[in-house]
Amino acid sequence: MRTELKKLIDLDRERVLVTHIASLLAWDQETHMPPGAEEERAEQLAWLEGAAHEKAVNPRIGEYLSALGCSDSNPRGDPGLGGDAGAFLRLLYRNYTREVKLPADLVTETAKAQSLGQAAWVRARSENDFAAFRPHLERILDLKRQAAVCLDPNKKPYDVLLDLFEPGSDEAQVRGVFEPLRKDLAALLAKIRSRPQVDDSFLRKPCSKEAQRTASRYFMELLGYDLRRGRLDVTAHPFTTTVGRADVRITTRYDEGYFLSSLFSTIHETGHALYEQGVNPPPEYAGTCLADGASMGIHESQSRMWENVVGRSRSFWSREYPALRAVLGEVLSGVSLDEFLRGINKVEPSLIRTEADEVTYGLHIILRFEMEADLLSGRLEVKDVPAAWNAKTKDLLGIEPPSDSKGCLQDVHWSAGLFGYFPSYSLGNLYAAQFVQALRRDLDLDSCLKAGDYASMLGWLRKKIHASGAALLPKELCEGVTGKPLDAGHFVDYLNRKYSEIYGF
Amino acid sequence: MRTELKKLIDLDRERVLVTHIASLLAWDQETHMPPGAEEERAEQLAWLEGAAHEKAVNPRIGEYLSALGCSDSNPRGDPGLGGDAGAFLRLLYRNYTREVKLPADLVTETAKAQSLGQAAWVRARSENDFAAFRPHLERILDLKRQAAVCLDPNKKPYDVLLDLFEPGSDEAQVRGVFEPLRKDLAALLAKIRSRPQVDDSFLRKPCSKEAQRTASRYFMELLGYDLRRGRLDVTAHPFTTTVGRADVRITTRYDEGYFLSSLFSTIHETGHALYEQGVNPPPEYAGTCLADGASMGIHESQSRMWENVVGRSRSFWSREYPALRAVLGEVLSGVSLDEFLRGINKVEPSLIRTEADEVTYGLHIILRFEMEADLLSGRLEVKDVPAAWNAKTKDLLGIEPPSDSKGCLQDVHWSAGLFGYFPSYSLGNLYAAQFVQALRRDLDLDSCLKAGDYASMLGWLRKKIHASGAALLPKELCEGVTGKPLDAGHFVDYLNRKYSEIYGF
Repeated sequence: MRTELKKLIDLDRERVLVTHIASLLAWDQETHMPPGAEEERAEQLAWLEGAAHEKAVNPRIGEYLSALGCSDSNPRGDPGLGGDAGAFLRLLYRNYTREVKLPADLVTETAKAQSLGQAAWVRARSENDFAAFRPHLERILDLKRQAAVCLDPNKKPYDVLLDLFEPGSDEAQVRGVFEPLRKDLAALLAKIRSRPQVDDSFLRKPCSKEAQRTASRYFMELLGYDLRRGRLDVTAHPFTTTVGRADVRITTRYDEGYFLSSLFSTIHETGHALYEQGVNPPPEYAGTCLADGASMGIHESQSRMWENVVGRSRSFWSREYPALRAVLGEVLSGVSLDEFLRGINKVEPSLIRTEADEVTYGLHIILRFEMEADLLSGRLEVKDVPAAWNAKTKDLLGIEPPSDSKGCLQDVHWSAGLFGYFPSYSLGNLYAAQFVQALRRDLDLDSCLKAGDYASMLGWLRKKIHASGAALLPKELCEGVTGKPLDAGHFVDYLNRKYSEIYGF
Repeated sequence: MRTELKKLIDLDRERVLVTHIASLLAWDQETHMPPGAEEERAEQLAWLEGAAHEKAVNPRIGEYLSALGCSDSNPRGDPGLGGDAGAFLRLLYRNYTREVKLPADLVTETAKAQSLGQAAWVRARSENDFAAFRPHLERILDLKRQAAVCLDPNKKPYDVLLDLFEPGSDEAQVRGVFEPLRKDLAALLAKIRSRPQVDDSFLRKPCSKEAQRTASRYFMELLGYDLRRGRLDVTAHPFTTTVGRADVRITTRYDEGYFLSSLFSTIHETGHALYEQGVNPPPEYAGTCLADGASMGIHESQSRMWENVVGRSRSFWSREYPALRAVLGEVLSGVSLDEFLRGINKVEPSLIRTEADEVTYGLHIILRFEMEADLLSGRLEVKDVPAAWNAKTKDLLGIEPPSDSKGCLQDVHWSAGLFGYFPSYSLGNLYAAQFVQALRRDLDLDSCLKAGDYASMLGWLRKKIHASGAALLPKELCEGVTGKPLDAGHFVDYLNRKYSEIYGF
């Protein structure tokens, strides 16, 4: 191995180590940190962010990349270095050329603002007080806009931010996918709403946190989550975080009046964690940027696949329903498998994105995408967010939030500075549908699920999607696995097939 | 404020911030970390230790210290800088001149060895397998010896290590205190053993972890621990850690067959935490080395004072016994206050230091002190530790450990690299006795305790001991508070007075 390559690996590994340390501090902030420690934690996270940034922009990285022949037109460097090196160098080149454009002060300030914003959001949501969160959101948005301008002053800020999560995407392209999807979803929703509606009141029966915790632990392990290399905790908003390659943690939340919330958010986060636990770069690249997911959209394809394609399917529950009933006790007594399946697949416009059904979910994403694009372009001001949110909810879903806590304060993303992230959720659904079609060519998925064989599906995902980590771009991964570019038609077909059976049209 | 002083404050504050981050990672390792993450965590801690060391040895610190007139003979710098600056500079000068002598490699290697050693110790103790721990201990000891030689090649290694925890102490001085103390304790123990012994079998009644947890929470808050700036968790060995000035966490352990273990270890750690939470340097020095305890011995004086002088006194329990009985349910039913007091003050040679009574506790410390001194001088080899431990236990306490888990593997200190720490525990008892004598001149302690007024005692400690933090050396603090140098006679008097009442001699 060339000396410069070896040195680049060492430098990048150190940067990744710092980000893992920051992940632990962020995890602790959400799970266990005493409330009085907020400000100090913000300083600690800002320092770590600054240290990681400093490592990412080390000028020696630029020198070594040049020495290895990397450039805008040839980011993989000298062909003689081989494919693994090429994948690593391309990614590192992308990261480095991006990071050197961000001033260290801006990075530190952003981390601090987000840490304080996070705490302010938790309070604002619990007290339904958007006004208290507003200055934090304004500050974070301003910092994100500044970052976008630094990264590429010739592009629209939202395009720049989107590309951070979904390499190769921009606002126009996403709008091009979302406009027809919006129509398809609206049409499907109208068809469903014209049919007799589902009674799922049994899902609101009181269910103890302890029973939900047992169910969460059961299903996460069942699907292949390795608890020796992870753990489950409780937070206001569920998430997955990577504290190390052998330390991928998930969180959930328990609503004693709606056990489905923890059940499906745990399965969702388990999907993310299985991906992270399955990333397996060549040993010499362990701990580098290659040991990561390919994109947020690909990540969401994994979480949504386990949550919806598996976790809301007849095949899965035909085997697992007795186990769930046993764990939850009386909650599901007298509820048949058919009733349960109709209940968990009930389609009905609702307020909380993370609890939306598969049809209306996409409409929630479109709402956030449009608002983010408007906020970044300046067409919308932060002070008008609650009104705009409520109007759009009415327009897209036909309902209105009774409070900001159940409206514009419901999601963690903006306080965490994740502008440009939301489209990944819908792209994830589209990727998932297309991946599953490919999987079904190799594997009789329904037979596997009916037999409780989750290892075959996980094995296929590990080999085809997880192992390569961040070596492939989303587009390359999609074409490599399915033979075709992303096509939203698979998702719409999947929904129509599924819901025509459930609602009988 | 002089520019150089301002810069020194900023540099030191950053170093302290890194050590707080490391504290969180170490805390997580003991409380929540998945087992598979051991190796990565060791790397993360080693990196942080290296980063903190790098900041501690920044050559600019040396330049600024010189510019401000600091030297071996005048570590406080120019007199015109004032008293606060003088205290800060003296401490920083001590830290800096010490740290520059330690090679970065050695610091990193030590952190890694201790992190792996910690995990190995937990396993070795639970499996009673000293052989598995032996190579770790040898490695850590070797690294500590190397560090001592770097710090001062002209001193005995153990003297150098001792001075790190108790500035101004050395082996000969400690031996000078411990030799007569050993005789006094042996004489008192003989007197006690000649009297009718106490039946404390009621303390072994089964007690649920939940009840013990409730008791721990009750007493820690009662004594003034601020849960908005701290929390309680469970670990193999209880400890206190400072993750930030507003984030001081304690841990305990629950033994369902011996509730006293959690009760007194929680009160003990609460004493440490109250000290940390009470440190209050001048605002311009917040977050620097001044915001710390004065020494390990002074720290132990606080924990042992709350645990023993308060927590094992008649005055305290005459008020709090009903609360403890209520929380523990049937465990103490039919046990009178007198029986309880005799039970918790029973003197009997036993194997586990942290559960030893106030008389034999000092003998446990003398054992460790002698073994450490022998290990560091080479008079004792690691392979012979179990045999030497058992022989010394027989000699000092008259009993023999049935296993290494209850013998030389019982304490966390050696795997954590804390050679030279143990004497602080006994010095803490001596300081505590002397401090309490001074406190009684200002405050009717027994009346306060009987009235449930813990705030008066805490207020006195905050003002006289906590607030100044690390600005004073232990010797200065002791003389400032009590008017006299440390005198072990107060402790021996305290023990004789207390136990003559309990055992009637």
